[in-house]
Amino acid sequence: GVNPDLASERQTASFSVEKLTAWLDGGAENTLMRRAVVEAIERDPVFSRENQYFQSQNERYEAAVRKAVHLQKKMREMGWTENGPEYKYIYRALAGDVAFLLHRIFTRSISMLGSDKQITKWIPLASQYQLIGSYSQTELGHGTYLQGLETTAVFDITTQEFILNTPKISAMKWWPGDMGRSATHTVVFAQLYIHGKCYGVHPFIVQIRSLQDHSLCPGITAGDIGPKMSFEHTDNGFLMLQNVRVPRENMLNKFCEVHPDGTYVRSGSQKINYFTMTTVRISILSDEVIVPVMKACTIAIRYSAVRRQSKLKPGEQESKILDYQTQQEKLLPQLAAAYAFHFINDYLQELFDRAYRQIQKKNFDMLPELHALSSGFKAVVTQCCTSAVEICLRACGGHGYSLLSGLPSLYTKILASCIYEGENTILLLQTARFLIKCFMAASAGQPLPPSVTYLASVKPGRCPAKNKLHFLNSDIYTEAYQHMAARLVSSTATKLQDLIQSGVKKHDAWNQCTVQLAQAAKAHCHYITVKNFVETVEKLKTQAGIQKIMKHLCDLFALHGIFSNPGVFLHDGYLSGAQMDMVTASYLDLLPVIRKDAVPLVDAFDFTDKSLNSALGSYDGQVYQRLYEWAQKSPTNKQMSTAYEKYLKPLLHNKLSKL
Amino acid sequence: GVNPDLASERQTASFSVEKLTAWLDGGAENTLMRRAVVEAIERDPVFSRENQYFQSQNERYEAAVRKAVHLQKKMREMGWTENGPEYKYIYRALAGDVAFLLHRIFTRSISMLGSDKQITKWIPLASQYQLIGSYSQTELGHGTYLQGLETTAVFDITTQEFILNTPKISAMKWWPGDMGRSATHTVVFAQLYIHGKCYGVHPFIVQIRSLQDHSLCPGITAGDIGPKMSFEHTDNGFLMLQNVRVPRENMLNKFCEVHPDGTYVRSGSQKINYFTMTTVRISILSDEVIVPVMKACTIAIRYSAVRRQSKLKPGEQESKILDYQTQQEKLLPQLAAAYAFHFINDYLQELFDRAYRQIQKKNFDMLPELHALSSGFKAVVTQCCTSAVEICLRACGGHGYSLLSGLPSLYTKILASCIYEGENTILLLQTARFLIKCFMAASAGQPLPPSVTYLASVKPGRCPAKNKLHFLNSDIYTEAYQHMAARLVSSTATKLQDLIQSGVKKHDAWNQCTVQLAQAAKAHCHYITVKNFVETVEKLKTQAGIQKIMKHLCDLFALHGIFSNPGVFLHDGYLSGAQMDMVTASYLDLLPVIRKDAVPLVDAFDFTDKSLNSALGSYDGQVYQRLYEWAQKSPTNKQMSTAYEKYLKPLLHNKLSKL
Repeated sequence: GVNPDLASERQTASFSVEKLTAWLDGGAENTLMRRAVVEAIERDPVFSRENQYFQSQNERYEAAVRKAVHLQKKMREMGWTENGPEYKYIYRALAGDVAFLLHRIFTRSISMLGSDKQITKWIPLASQYQLIGSYSQTELGHGTYLQGLETTAVFDITTQEFILNTPKISAMKWWPGDMGRSATHTVVFAQLYIHGKCYGVHPFIVQIRSLQDHSLCPGITAGDIGPKMSFEHTDNGFLMLQNVRVPRENMLNKFCEVHPDGTYVRSGSQKINYFTMTTVRISILSDEVIVPVMKACTIAIRYSAVRRQSKLKPGEQESKILDYQTQQEKLLPQLAAAYAFHFINDYLQELFDRAYRQIQKKNFDMLPELHALSSGFKAVVTQCCTSAVEICLRACGGHGYSLLSGLPSLYTKILASCIYEGENTILLLQTARFLIKCFMAASAGQPLPPSVTYLASVKPGRCPAKNKLHFLNSDIYTEAYQHMAARLVSSTATKLQDLIQSGVKKHDAWNQCTVQLAQAAKAHCHYITVKNFVETVEKLKTQAGIQKIMKHLCDLFALHGIFSNPGVFLHDGYLSGAQMDMVTASYLDLLPVIRKDAVPLVDAFDFTDKSLNSALGSYDGQVYQRLYEWAQKSPTNKQMSTAYEKYLKPLLHNKLSKL
Repeated sequence: GVNPDLASERQTASFSVEKLTAWLDGGAENTLMRRAVVEAIERDPVFSRENQYFQSQNERYEAAVRKAVHLQKKMREMGWTENGPEYKYIYRALAGDVAFLLHRIFTRSISMLGSDKQITKWIPLASQYQLIGSYSQTELGHGTYLQGLETTAVFDITTQEFILNTPKISAMKWWPGDMGRSATHTVVFAQLYIHGKCYGVHPFIVQIRSLQDHSLCPGITAGDIGPKMSFEHTDNGFLMLQNVRVPRENMLNKFCEVHPDGTYVRSGSQKINYFTMTTVRISILSDEVIVPVMKACTIAIRYSAVRRQSKLKPGEQESKILDYQTQQEKLLPQLAAAYAFHFINDYLQELFDRAYRQIQKKNFDMLPELHALSSGFKAVVTQCCTSAVEICLRACGGHGYSLLSGLPSLYTKILASCIYEGENTILLLQTARFLIKCFMAASAGQPLPPSVTYLASVKPGRCPAKNKLHFLNSDIYTEAYQHMAARLVSSTATKLQDLIQSGVKKHDAWNQCTVQLAQAAKAHCHYITVKNFVETVEKLKTQAGIQKIMKHLCDLFALHGIFSNPGVFLHDGYLSGAQMDMVTASYLDLLPVIRKDAVPLVDAFDFTDKSLNSALGSYDGQVYQRLYEWAQKSPTNKQMSTAYEKYLKPLLHNKLSKL
């Protein structure tokens, strides 16, 4: 049965959980489809994650390969296809522990960078798994700065081949997923040389393992890079190339080609490369970042409703920890953030779709804005969500620290999202560069892309709020965020110009402003997040019950942002100290209001117990029984340790000197 | 050889690294002794951590037991004793991976809570390892709030025994270290019942495993609680008791006794219990919190001096990432914090020694202040250092995420320090309670303990600084911190009183102020940290070279605190927006100054390569070679995977349907 402490939380929901779920899914029909996919996956024992927390890196890898192979069968059986509507729910249901994700990137890179001839040759091989692909870009010594890659590909006219080499250890490919043990082929990014002249980085299809017996091909050194903080199931690999020859046709040549005589021809637009990165950055947000934070909130909030500790009132029963202001202040802003970023994901997706339609018409106008927003939000969302998961973990005390809570693995995995697909600081600086450019354009009276028009109207001002209730007016706080973001962009632009005018070289001046530029980029993204949350709530008019609680969450998200970062609002007097006290009061008042609906709000995320895989977060709230049951399955209780015979017994029987 | 990029960093040190090391050690003679201990430990292959990152939980446990047993031999061999001066360096040298730490707590609790007779009986058994002890306080359902423990000990007059029981699952002992697999005895905390009346929580010595064959004793269910985020080497355990009988003499009875007729007699002071917790909280700071953050800084800063990425100036070589303002702004404040907290540890140690001398004279006056400071600093130092290690990890990009960097294991371990020995929020609220009490006492004209005298002089005011250089005056920033801390204590006290006067019940009012109370407690600790850093630098007068760089670090620590938390200084106008810009300018100016000495400043921590156990952090800076060498040793490269034969081969050979 359900723990009464959790059951009671559900009886007082101010809204229909089922309706909120459907709305989050974008319609009840999507909810149905998602649940059908989840059920099919979870019913199949091959996809079970039951013993995941006890497995070694080798076991996790093997299980992931097994699942990936089995998934092909399952999809045929269920009639699911890679382009079908069910597909996006499969990965969510598998919860990430599946191999061959890089095989998809391999395929995608050929589709985007390859000629029609190359696509015709390679895509069928890949989709029928007659090869397993990977994607080899990052090197031991080179990550985000692609121009610095050191792998070389020298064109040999006599044999019409490229000769690939790893000239030194820092040029070794390092990190590519699926490459350490699985892949037979990979796309290698290397500096192209023809007649001794370097033409920059280009992609080459290279076979690395035999299709017969999986042995490494001549000239190839490859293996696994060893244990990481998470991703035990992925064989991230290393690759060294020694005079590896591939035919001329293996350079992906949609945008540039090497003719048989060594002539180098560039064709098509380079801009499209931006678009590829943008696609990936937006696509990771939902599954890799927002879903994990929703899971962490579900676990921590359900646990906080059943965990009783200490007494709020003398003489009473011990209190649910969710009733403490400090616990609410830890968890509820993270819950609000999970919703806020779910809506930002919709916003980015919509923006992306619009841009994509334009690009198909050869109109690249939206690219700079899309690039700036996708970079900035990748950084801000991964950063905030990683911190949110950590807060959830710590809010569960000791039990949160047990792997069985599910929280450590959510944390160690989401942490990687701050690092991969562009290091966050570098991404924020790309957004900042766009903002500074727009701010300059605005000063020169030029038109601006929609998301940054506010930069044209930077002016001093003061918040008109007179009491704490005014801060529940979304115009009041949205304007405060807008003012703050505009001020940070404008003051950093001024600093930059002042430095340059005082004789500092442009690149030095830029470096001296980067800490503040990154702050400005974050402020911009926070403003857009608040604005988008407000607009999302406004659109909800027809569903009064849901709108009311979403409005509370929106207020909480916005006021938490001011409460926890008051300096930027106080700095120029836009908010006074007295107004900041009103913000604090309104913010703290909201906590017990939202606390009443906290469990229904996480129930609405609609995670099954299997997908949470948490002894603390299950729907029935029977946390202590489950912790005990799961602990008993641990190999530390099943495998007899030799420690007693070898060390403890001689010690206890006082034979220490003979050890 | 040393990587030239790292060697060059050492040629320009502004001070003598060896002198700084000696000063940090408290004298060159200590440095010599520490190095001798480290060398003896590291030369011994039993203590090697070489393959630690590849080991399973079972292997880690076994290695830790082996090391603990071997250590006994080593100590005799070397002439080290538990009370000798070398002892504190042993644990540092072992870097934590050693069993029987709870055995020490077992011994200590008997020494402190046991009668002379009990000490005479048990301590020799424990120190000769004729038993292995643990300490069973925490239960599945109960952590910090000890009064809520549910384990029962009922006195049976007829047999003169206590009958111990675990009445329900939430009462099961959970987490005690060394108990899952090793311990033969443990101190169980249980509610004492005599004639049906409960006398509260008392400690009982209980044997749980046979001294002959290590099998569980009758009525005992015990085992390992399974995988955690770290501490793989520790057998944290569970324990269920069913009618387990122990003789009357097994209740530790220095402070209270049960007579044969069931009469309960309390003797001695309860206050001393505070002191025990205080001891532990202070003692963990150095080894478990400050040493790890020093290691993380060493790894991240050395790596940042050899990692080159992107270009600061067009046309030049790629730049060391340590030359980027954003990287300096990530790492250098953490380095300053490592120093700041090293000095706070000295401060607390001194305070503790003074209090201890007084207590031996039966004077308990210092206890409240010591308790408040040790609680608050336990929370603040663990919180800041955990965040510092995470920043270091992320600042190393992808390679920081590899276990081989050493950073993930530092992070996952230090994170636990925020949770154990008192949950941080609860500790901050204990400090806050002391601060509010002192503030009230000051308002009533009563005298205050030294660390809080400033609360007597809270008044509005403005910072007198006129330009950015004024913020390098330590009086200026120390006063800003003092003003801010006093204001937060005073305004929260006012809110609390207002609520109570408006009719809110005292405990509700307290709960409604806890978010702000915790902030006030943190502010107090930050102020003390800055003040203590300033005083430490002032005392350095005779060593000019070291004093200069320490002054820079002190300034950086103080200004970083204002820069990253500007709201509390701006709130009442103590600092103006214009002054905040000066703080920012001075702060950012300091980064390139300290950057020049960054590598010497971490070299001075004097960690051996073995103790860092990091492919990124070694003294020679040969990071890429080392990553590659270490990765090759990974079991993922040594054990043949069955994944190819079982799953990949059938897939590639198109036998999917037969799988």
